[in-house]
Amino acid sequence: MKKHILVIHGPNLNLLGEREVGVYGSESFDSINREIQAFAESLGLSCEIYQSNIEGEIIDKIQKERQHYDGIVANMGAYTHYSYAIRDAIASVKKPCIEVHMSNVHNREEFRKISVIAPVCAAQISGFGKYSYLLAIEGLNKLI
Amino acid sequence: MKKHILVIHGPNLNLLGEREVGVYGSESFDSINREIQAFAESLGLSCEIYQSNIEGEIIDKIQKERQHYDGIVANMGAYTHYSYAIRDAIASVKKPCIEVHMSNVHNREEFRKISVIAPVCAAQISGFGKYSYLLAIEGLNKLI
Amino acid sequence: MKKHILVIHGPNLNLLGEREVGVYGSESFDSINREIQAFAESLGLSCEIYQSNIEGEIIDKIQKERQHYDGIVANMGAYTHYSYAIRDAIASVKKPCIEVHMSNVHNREEFRKISVIAPVCAAQISGFGKYSYLLAIEGLNKLI
Amino acid sequence: MKKHILVIHGPNLNLLGEREVGVYGSESFDSINREIQAFAESLGLSCEIYQSNIEGEIIDKIQKERQHYDGIVANMGAYTHYSYAIRDAIASVKKPCIEVHMSNVHNREEFRKISVIAPVCAAQISGFGKYSYLLAIEGLNKLI
Amino acid sequence: MKKHILVIHGPNLNLLGEREVGVYGSESFDSINREIQAFAESLGLSCEIYQSNIEGEIIDKIQKERQHYDGIVANMGAYTHYSYAIRDAIASVKKPCIEVHMSNVHNREEFRKISVIAPVCAAQISGFGKYSYLLAIEGLNKLI
Amino acid sequence: MKKHILVIHGPNLNLLGEREVGVYGSESFDSINREIQAFAESLGLSCEIYQSNIEGEIIDKIQKERQHYDGIVANMGAYTHYSYAIRDAIASVKKPCIEVHMSNVHNREEFRKISVIAPVCAAQISGFGKYSYLLAIEGLNKLI
Amino acid sequence: MKKHILVIHGPNLNLLGEREVGVYGSESFDSINREIQAFAESLGLSCEIYQSNIEGEIIDKIQKERQHYDGIVANMGAYTHYSYAIRDAIASVKKPCIEVHMSNVHNREEFRKISVIAPVCAAQISGFGKYSYLLAIEGLNKLI
Amino acid sequence: MKKHILVIHGPNLNLLGEREVGVYGSESFDSINREIQAFAESLGLSCEIYQSNIEGEIIDKIQKERQHYDGIVANMGAYTHYSYAIRDAIASVKKPCIEVHMSNVHNREEFRKISVIAPVCAAQISGFGKYSYLLAIEGLNKLI
Amino acid sequence: MKKHILVIHGPNLNLLGEREVGVYGSESFDSINREIQAFAESLGLSCEIYQSNIEGEIIDKIQKERQHYDGIVANMGAYTHYSYAIRDAIASVKKPCIEVHMSNVHNREEFRKISVIAPVCAAQISGFGKYSYLLAIEGLNKLI
Amino acid sequence: MKKHILVIHGPNLNLLGEREVGVYGSESFDSINREIQAFAESLGLSCEIYQSNIEGEIIDKIQKERQHYDGIVANMGAYTHYSYAIRDAIASVKKPCIEVHMSNVHNREEFRKISVIAPVCAAQISGFGKYSYLLAIEGLNKLI
Amino acid sequence: MKKHILVIHGPNLNLLGEREVGVYGSESFDSINREIQAFAESLGLSCEIYQSNIEGEIIDKIQKERQHYDGIVANMGAYTHYSYAIRDAIASVKKPCIEVHMSNVHNREEFRKISVIAPVCAAQISGFGKYSYLLAIEGLNKLI
Amino acid sequence: MKKHILVIHGPNLNLLGEREVGVYGSESFDSINREIQAFAESLGLSCEIYQSNIEGEIIDKIQKERQHYDGIVANMGAYTHYSYAIRDAIASVKKPCIEVHMSNVHNREEFRKISVIAPVCAAQISGFGKYSYLLAIEGLNKLI
Repeated sequence: MKKHILVIHGPNLNLLGEREVGVYGSESFDSINREIQAFAESLGLSCEIYQSNIEGEIIDKIQKERQHYDGIVANMGAYTHYSYAIRDAIASVKKPCIEVHMSNVHNREEFRKISVIAPVCAAQISGFGKYSYLLAIEGLNKLI
Repeated sequence: MKKHILVIHGPNLNLLGEREVGVYGSESFDSINREIQAFAESLGLSCEIYQSNIEGEIIDKIQKERQHYDGIVANMGAYTHYSYAIRDAIASVKKPCIEVHMSNVHNREEFRKISVIAPVCAAQISGFGKYSYLLAIEGLNKLI
Repeated sequence: MKKHILVIHGPNLNLLGEREVGVYGSESFDSINREIQAFAESLGLSCEIYQSNIEGEIIDKIQKERQHYDGIVANMGAYTHYSYAIRDAIASVKKPCIEVHMSNVHNREEFRKISVIAPVCAAQISGFGKYSYLLAIEGLNKLI
Repeated sequence: MKKHILVIHGPNLNLLGEREVGVYGSESFDSINREIQAFAESLGLSCEIYQSNIEGEIIDKIQKERQHYDGIVANMGAYTHYSYAIRDAIASVKKPCIEVHMSNVHNREEFRKISVIAPVCAAQISGFGKYSYLLAIEGLNKLI
Repeated sequence: MKKHILVIHGPNLNLLGEREVGVYGSESFDSINREIQAFAESLGLSCEIYQSNIEGEIIDKIQKERQHYDGIVANMGAYTHYSYAIRDAIASVKKPCIEVHMSNVHNREEFRKISVIAPVCAAQISGFGKYSYLLAIEGLNKLI
Repeated sequence: MKKHILVIHGPNLNLLGEREVGVYGSESFDSINREIQAFAESLGLSCEIYQSNIEGEIIDKIQKERQHYDGIVANMGAYTHYSYAIRDAIASVKKPCIEVHMSNVHNREEFRKISVIAPVCAAQISGFGKYSYLLAIEGLNKLI
Repeated sequence: MKKHILVIHGPNLNLLGEREVGVYGSESFDSINREIQAFAESLGLSCEIYQSNIEGEIIDKIQKERQHYDGIVANMGAYTHYSYAIRDAIASVKKPCIEVHMSNVHNREEFRKISVIAPVCAAQISGFGKYSYLLAIEGLNKLI
Repeated sequence: MKKHILVIHGPNLNLLGEREVGVYGSESFDSINREIQAFAESLGLSCEIYQSNIEGEIIDKIQKERQHYDGIVANMGAYTHYSYAIRDAIASVKKPCIEVHMSNVHNREEFRKISVIAPVCAAQISGFGKYSYLLAIEGLNKLI
Repeated sequence: MKKHILVIHGPNLNLLGEREVGVYGSESFDSINREIQAFAESLGLSCEIYQSNIEGEIIDKIQKERQHYDGIVANMGAYTHYSYAIRDAIASVKKPCIEVHMSNVHNREEFRKISVIAPVCAAQISGFGKYSYLLAIEGLNKLI
Repeated sequence: MKKHILVIHGPNLNLLGEREVGVYGSESFDSINREIQAFAESLGLSCEIYQSNIEGEIIDKIQKERQHYDGIVANMGAYTHYSYAIRDAIASVKKPCIEVHMSNVHNREEFRKISVIAPVCAAQISGFGKYSYLLAIEGLNKLI
Repeated sequence: MKKHILVIHGPNLNLLGEREVGVYGSESFDSINREIQAFAESLGLSCEIYQSNIEGEIIDKIQKERQHYDGIVANMGAYTHYSYAIRDAIASVKKPCIEVHMSNVHNREEFRKISVIAPVCAAQISGFGKYSYLLAIEGLNKLI
Repeated sequence: MKKHILVIHGPNLNLLGEREVGVYGSESFDSINREIQAFAESLGLSCEIYQSNIEGEIIDKIQKERQHYDGIVANMGAYTHYSYAIRDAIASVKKPCIEVHMSNVHNREEFRKISVIAPVCAAQISGFGKYSYLLAIEGLNKLI
């Protein structure tokens, strides 16, 4: 049976292509998602992509689908830096989660260097722009 | 007239019985809630039980019912550690609130030692598993 | 064409007039909003007022209307102190935002001294009670 | 056979009823102890109550009786905040210990927020006045 | 009788129009002061404007005039960040003081984020350029 | 009736005249105590002098005599820097306490700069050698 | 020959009797100075009393008179907490200096607990109100 | 022309397959290097693999080859956490460098969470075991 | 004449053989003491062994015997980490003291890494189990 | 035309030759100034030397002469460590400033290691005694 | 078969007898090594002694000989305080390592109090001069 | 006899003229070294210039030549900020060492503000570009 993965975009990532173009590039959110979808399928994976600005809805999503996906690729945006609630959700579902960032979070503001979800994730990728997502899917595919 | 209390479960507590069984035990969320309900009634209290993963919905709940309950028993889960917004909500309604944790938060990760809501709560109980809720209701009953 | 501004009230501000009266005064939330609306109009501005207790809904609002308003006046309540997600939303829309607080946040609890949104706001006003909003609108009008 | 518990009062608690009445109430130390004793018996427990101002004597007590009690209810007073020696004593005897405080230690001085014994206790209760002891005994009874 | 206010400019503000033009604009110190004076009068206030680079002279000024003014508008420049002596002077005279900054002090150097005078001021305004002074006068007028 | 004061010497002060002569001088403990006694009497005060190395015995002393003395002069030695239990004892008895040190604690090791008892003492004197005690008695005499 | 001492009052102390009466009492600055003068003379000392709000003028004073006085009694007010320049001046003149505070600086704001001049002073006295000065003169008289 | 990349293993990585097998797996260093080499070639890249335990030799290597490679894949081992000298070397050569870790450095010791080289690297990958290298090469290939 | 040494065991060490067997081993306190005694004698030393749980009694012991012993071997248990009073006692007696720990205190809890007595001891030994005492005696024998 | 430089001595430097001779040497302030003057002239520079103990007067000086000098050599004494006001003055005048210290500030008290003016100076020299000034003038001459 | 141990001296220890004689004594490096060698042999151990100033060469040594020695005695000199790379090497080889210091590192500079290798060593000895090595060998002999 | 000095360049300085030209200028390493050599000779000094990227080789150099040079001029590059081993080497040889930086290390990254070698150097010079070396040699010449 096909493996299924859940790709989660956290707050403000829906503005990709418009927001801080110097950091994130000008390709639109939809276009990147299409590339993610296509790439996952090319690896023989099925893939659901989800975005929300609401911390608790992200938790709801992680919980509700927990029987159906085999792993998570998650760019939690700013929630990365303080959402212990999302951390607990990831730890609860016991599926491997790959933390993703498009930018190199280590040469931006100080607060972006701290990830409260990293200790419960299996792996992290940051700094490759949209390719961060693709590499994460490829890496997750090795682990599941 | 019967005293009425509000029992709030914060994020990820709906997964009780499934999540980190070593820490929280294997009894299901529904089963624990039935025991809470029965215990409150045995003390002559009416009791509403509420769960949400969404920080702001918890605030909504605290605000909306504020004329109807005489006290709160609250396990805010991970929001305990950073939700100053929930703290403000508790302080605003001027009803006694008992902070509850099932596990002993002091021998787990460092971040769980800090409660930003504790200074506006009347009392705290942690470490008794599901009995933390029951003792909290009993204690709240002494204060209201 | 008329300039349009968005006034955002964050969590617990809907309880104004009832909550911590010693700090915030006893005038009701609705009454203050009427005064804000009237004042904005007196300056030739159109004005939408929005309140939510939910962090992510505030982000949704900031994003959705971003083509229609020329600036934001925002009292983010307790989210001021930790919502890097709201900070990112404000930075993303590239419209001037004025941070507002009714009380003097500097002679209250230690945690209220830190604003994570201030670095992406154009200006801040605090301590004038309801007049903080009016002065913010007046100041914003100079900048847009 | 009857379970036996040890209730320990640390430094300055012998002045209850006289000391900081605004924080601790005006009921006398002896009166509270009688209520503790009666309550323990009502649960079918035998109970010894001990008070000392001397850190090392508290350690002596914890050690000497370690074959006879099934659990400890302990309000270590100010030693809570720095006595690693008492912490080691509690850890050594391998019986469940419930940490108790009458006041809500979280809205007092900063130093009272830190408990060095909490990581080796099974559970904590604070803020219920004398009822903190009674709830602790009830909770301990569930654990032993 | 006319209300009287004291506007204080701290160190280096006399170089306005010349110093860090990118941050403070190129309008001259005298020109801004004329605008402040005119604005105060338009509100029916009399107004004295004072500048000094010497911390103790600013204290002298605050003390000497304390029977004559009804409130202070103060941009203490760099003294904002360490002059506990000025803080004590403001607290001593028991008249409302509005802390003013032309720039947004929160997106500059780290040390500019700390104001030691804020806890004894009634309100703060920053980031509106010269309008920070005018809004402060308007706000002060509401408070006196 | 004669006022009565309690002079307390904490740990290691009994070795005065022998211990760290460079810091404390070579006059013996007994000789200094005789001078303290004589000086108190010269002011019309009766005076009891007490020394113990045991933290809890010092607390016992403060508690037991609390009806009989009108004030305390206390050199708590190293307990000054960490004994929150002694702090609570001083606060409990509600009699003015003068904190005394013979040496200037501010030009020795870093840890000696922190006094946990100072916030509950009425006043402090340090650095005058044995005269610290005499000045403390004289000052206490003004306050009782 | 008569010993001569210099008594220095730092910033805002000239407002004594008017400023924060709850903390400092209502006796006027002049009245306290007369008492200081009289007391010094009663000990056979000549005494000059000096006040300035200007940090550098205090340094000037300490330097200029350095051949004429045998010791200093100094209440540096808020400069106590940050004036390393005054600290250097005191250290330079190599005469004993007694640090004085009227209030107990240890139960006020956090910043008042730190004295940057203490390590170069011979002794400190705080908390006795105006008597802090008198005791300091008496103590200084023992050291010179 | 073929792109050329430099793969650097820092201290102790030569013990792979033998060292902390629970963390790093039991595949040998040589075997992993063969897989890295083969993978790079499969992408049409030429690849040199280098290992040293000596910080300065790693710097020598980065410098000497700087005209010949188009990018670096670097697992600096423990030097990641303190070698500002390697950081400067990477920054000096102005070629993109991908920071690699086999383990998830965020759920190990505290010191492993800090990377002093991350701010000068283009991207980071950690937690995928040997696949971290392969994904890094793939990602680097997108950037050069 | 025979050299005489004092071996001090601090709090909870009397439970050796029973307490945290995984850390300290299962040999009894008495058995270890016999070995210590025998070993000292084999080196031609006389030796007194003392244990107390009471901080102040340990100080009493150090003081009282100070004319009779030539050096101290001390395992202060948890007092190691906060007893500045014991530190002062050791410093007062001016005899070499060897700090001993049976376990490696550096791979246990964070608080065990700090020794407040180390700066006044001549040397430290930790991690050799009971042999820590024997090596300490051997080392002390070289120094006295 | 001749280049003109301003040499500023901050607080307490006028006591050179008398103050802390072990650190600063015994050559008098006037003698050093003569040497500075002569050296500047030998390089073809004109030179004004200024000393003040008053922070704000130093700022006045920096501002007033700003059209006339081409660079500053400044030993700000203790103001180096906290005067953000002097820092702002130096930054305002946009002329290169060389920070000078006679002693090696890095092996003295901790507070002397921090220079708040260094980030706005072009260069620093410390530890050469009076030669620090001469080398600074020589270096400044290269930069202007 | 004879047990074999590796004794490692880190940076600057080759200057023993010449460097900081007040701290380390005047016996030469060679002389101490001869004594170490002789002592090891007297215990029936073979022993190799190695010194290097180069961090990575020390790692090379630890790795290369790892099949041949049964334990390590290591004085890593200043690398003790920051070489996580050496720490990893020690942890990798899974042989007991004894950390040695000749001086008492706890009464010297602050930075010498932190050992990053201690958590992976079996035991530590410091403060006995050259005897630290001998006692370490003796202790290691008990453990292997 | 001619004085001899050792000029040491630490890691990455061999890339001068190529590395971060904006910070260090575009003059080549060799060219600067020729200027250093010539300048030293012009002062009547002989001079050896040494560069290495390897921390331990720098230590070797400092040690080996210690009988032949009269002082050191050292730009330790990034090792400045963490090499306690180099610090110990400098301290061991007891010759004056001048710490040099070409850039102003105080307006770059935070980590560059800390020099662990400064406390054992005689003096520091930074911010003059290549002239930092020349001034250092000139200053060193005054001290030897």
